[in-house]
Amino acid sequence: MTGAEPCFLTAAQAAEAIKTGRLTSEALIRSCLERIEARDPVVKAWLHVDRAHAIAQAREIDKRPPMGPLHGLPFGVKDIMDTADMPTTYNSPAWQSHRPTRDAACVGIVRQAGAVILGKTDTVEFAFNSRRAASTNPYNAAHTPGGSSSGSGAAVGDFQVPFAFGTQTAGSHIRPASFNGIYAIKPSWGTVSREGVHMISAILDTVGWYGRSVEDLVLAAQAFRLEGTGAIAVPDVKGLRIGSCETPFWAQAEDGAKQAMAASVERLRKAGAVVEEIVLPAHFGDLAEAHTMIMYGEGRVALHDEYLRHGYKLHPELRLTVENGRGVTPKRLVEAFDLSDICRKEFDAIAAGYDAVLAPASTGEAPKGLQNVGNWIFNGLWTLLHTPCIAIPAILGGLGLPVGVQLVGPRLSDARLLGIAQALQSVIDTGAAERTRLLSAA
Amino acid sequence: MTGAEPCFLTAAQAAEAIKTGRLTSEALIRSCLERIEARDPVVKAWLHVDRAHAIAQAREIDKRPPMGPLHGLPFGVKDIMDTADMPTTYNSPAWQSHRPTRDAACVGIVRQAGAVILGKTDTVEFAFNSRRAASTNPYNAAHTPGGSSSGSGAAVGDFQVPFAFGTQTAGSHIRPASFNGIYAIKPSWGTVSREGVHMISAILDTVGWYGRSVEDLVLAAQAFRLEGTGAIAVPDVKGLRIGSCETPFWAQAEDGAKQAMAASVERLRKAGAVVEEIVLPAHFGDLAEAHTMIMYGEGRVALHDEYLRHGYKLHPELRLTVENGRGVTPKRLVEAFDLSDICRKEFDAIAAGYDAVLAPASTGEAPKGLQNVGNWIFNGLWTLLHTPCIAIPAILGGLGLPVGVQLVGPRLSDARLLGIAQALQSVIDTGAAERTRLLSAA
Repeated sequence: MTGAEPCFLTAAQAAEAIKTGRLTSEALIRSCLERIEARDPVVKAWLHVDRAHAIAQAREIDKRPPMGPLHGLPFGVKDIMDTADMPTTYNSPAWQSHRPTRDAACVGIVRQAGAVILGKTDTVEFAFNSRRAASTNPYNAAHTPGGSSSGSGAAVGDFQVPFAFGTQTAGSHIRPASFNGIYAIKPSWGTVSREGVHMISAILDTVGWYGRSVEDLVLAAQAFRLEGTGAIAVPDVKGLRIGSCETPFWAQAEDGAKQAMAASVERLRKAGAVVEEIVLPAHFGDLAEAHTMIMYGEGRVALHDEYLRHGYKLHPELRLTVENGRGVTPKRLVEAFDLSDICRKEFDAIAAGYDAVLAPASTGEAPKGLQNVGNWIFNGLWTLLHTPCIAIPAILGGLGLPVGVQLVGPRLSDARLLGIAQALQSVIDTGAAERTRLLSAA
Repeated sequence: MTGAEPCFLTAAQAAEAIKTGRLTSEALIRSCLERIEARDPVVKAWLHVDRAHAIAQAREIDKRPPMGPLHGLPFGVKDIMDTADMPTTYNSPAWQSHRPTRDAACVGIVRQAGAVILGKTDTVEFAFNSRRAASTNPYNAAHTPGGSSSGSGAAVGDFQVPFAFGTQTAGSHIRPASFNGIYAIKPSWGTVSREGVHMISAILDTVGWYGRSVEDLVLAAQAFRLEGTGAIAVPDVKGLRIGSCETPFWAQAEDGAKQAMAASVERLRKAGAVVEEIVLPAHFGDLAEAHTMIMYGEGRVALHDEYLRHGYKLHPELRLTVENGRGVTPKRLVEAFDLSDICRKEFDAIAAGYDAVLAPASTGEAPKGLQNVGNWIFNGLWTLLHTPCIAIPAILGGLGLPVGVQLVGPRLSDARLLGIAQALQSVIDTGAAERTRLLSAA
């Protein structure tokens, strides 16, 4: 493909083309379907695509007056989210024939805003440490696209769909964004309903979405009516104060993360932003352990029903979690909750001193093989702290795979952070044309 | 009915009778169905009961070896919980024909433990301030059974079913227990999966169950494998240290709550317990406002999809919530989260000085009429603090309606609190025989 087909447009570009009559939803969907047909044998992002149903949805929308900010735009849905018109398997062998009778709230909301649900994307089973997605990294099929939002990250990265949902309990949403050279927002905890999304942890699970520009992220944020996203102010880069935060886990950064952070800081300074280093208080270093306790403590409860239903057929990692192989105790769990409560408040105060906090989005490039979906160490703390996070692609690493960074803000500052990200995206992300070139030739 | 029929047994008594071969599940279910047939025209607790299906389930279970602690026992399910074999309407006009294809996790877990799902109980629409259940108080049909777990509370109170699920976001589970003369546990937040239960607030929503003795509550707690409930220690009452906590909201207590608390304290002292007054720090008084902010802030997100689907047909109170008629702002929401985080930790420390904390379970007897389902002021703080709460009937008030009290403990001390409650139930609840007498004559 040449890179001129509609599937290579960002969601915001496609929305503009549909609005001005230069593109129909049907033409866009057909282009995405063609891309999927060409690439799915390698990328394997999808568990379910119904060509005829997708085209029928698009035709219907082309007949209607615009209903919302996503009018005619295709959306991929992670297969832990219920859909009334498609199977929902959780990538679990036990649920292959499961057909819910209503949409998850997030699916319903984007449909109401005009989106076409293109299909269901592959995921780690129940989005929790178990059976891996078959999906591969669009830049090199020998590498993972990350997980658990594997298929969503790969599909958006490979220009098969402009939008897709992911979820994050540890690093499952932002890390695949880094690995696939795409944009993502993990909104502040609690701002997007998780009704109809398979649950692991009430205090961690967060629904987010992928796009290929910050403007894309804004369109879906408007559909969800995130506070203030109706009119986002985009500031000048010059003079913006950015806190560069390596986090207490920097020792785990590989070359990819180091290069991505260094390049971003350099580009920001060159563009006139003021970048200062933030060193988080020492007890933030305990958030990784706190996160693990909470994820396994809540995961144990969440998976109990699956365990009773499926017994020894359940994936060993899920069985281990229910059988408390991770040694969760009430005392450790309460301590984990209490530490995260304290750090949440403290981080808000720290972040209030900056226009945005810059942090690594993954430890580096995507690992080789499909079993290791990557390390969540640079993500778990932000999930636990309930902050908004926006992933921006930064570099192509030594292996030729993308690595991103993330912007982080205080809780419920999503609209402000989206404005800052809009200002900074072209500064940090200098490789968009190169990514299109590489993958349109793939 | 005479009070000798199986439906008048507590769950624990019925379990023992089934275990020793004196009772079959089928005979118990038939007795419950007979009671429902006789009383439902007045009490209106059920939205769905399928007689033949319930009997078929019971027969099947009678053929099997015991699967778990609920073997053969009937369970009522609040109709905001998904069931694979029954409708799930949320008591919403828009969802009357909704049939999920899988069970909510809590329903799946009790089924796996041997329970027979007897039917779906009426509820306030989406368990949130809107269309009321038709259910009436079994002691006086002119009064509410409370809400939102209206039908569950009324059905267990009226001896129609020994067990039923409720949920609590403000006071929806413990308050109906008080109004219907029954026992309830609201387990520590996060210990029971909410998968497949219609969500209002991730930080508040809690699934609990009703029974007619503490032993009943224990049986279901064992099915959910609540930490330590496999072997519960029941202490001597003599010398137990009980903290009597009127809460900062005592000015809202009516005669019923005053009498229930005074009678409980007197009976406890007479039995040899040491009762001291606990005065919570002044800022606990702000928890009511914090609770309101969080409930409306999270409710606004949770109901957004319903709002888009149903528009002006949605109940005005639900529309108002989505349209933010309650004036939730990011700042007020963050302040509410932060205050509750602080108080959670502080309350655990206070409660650690006592064997249990005694508190009002409702402001008094059930209000007249079905529109006012009661005041949640004595419940919202505990929901927000994530503590386990166990409701115990205490008195019949001036109107002849029951009023209960609740025992509260630190987070994740459920097993210990159940043990204390087992010790205290016969001290506090002196009216069980009278309740059976009154309602068997009804």
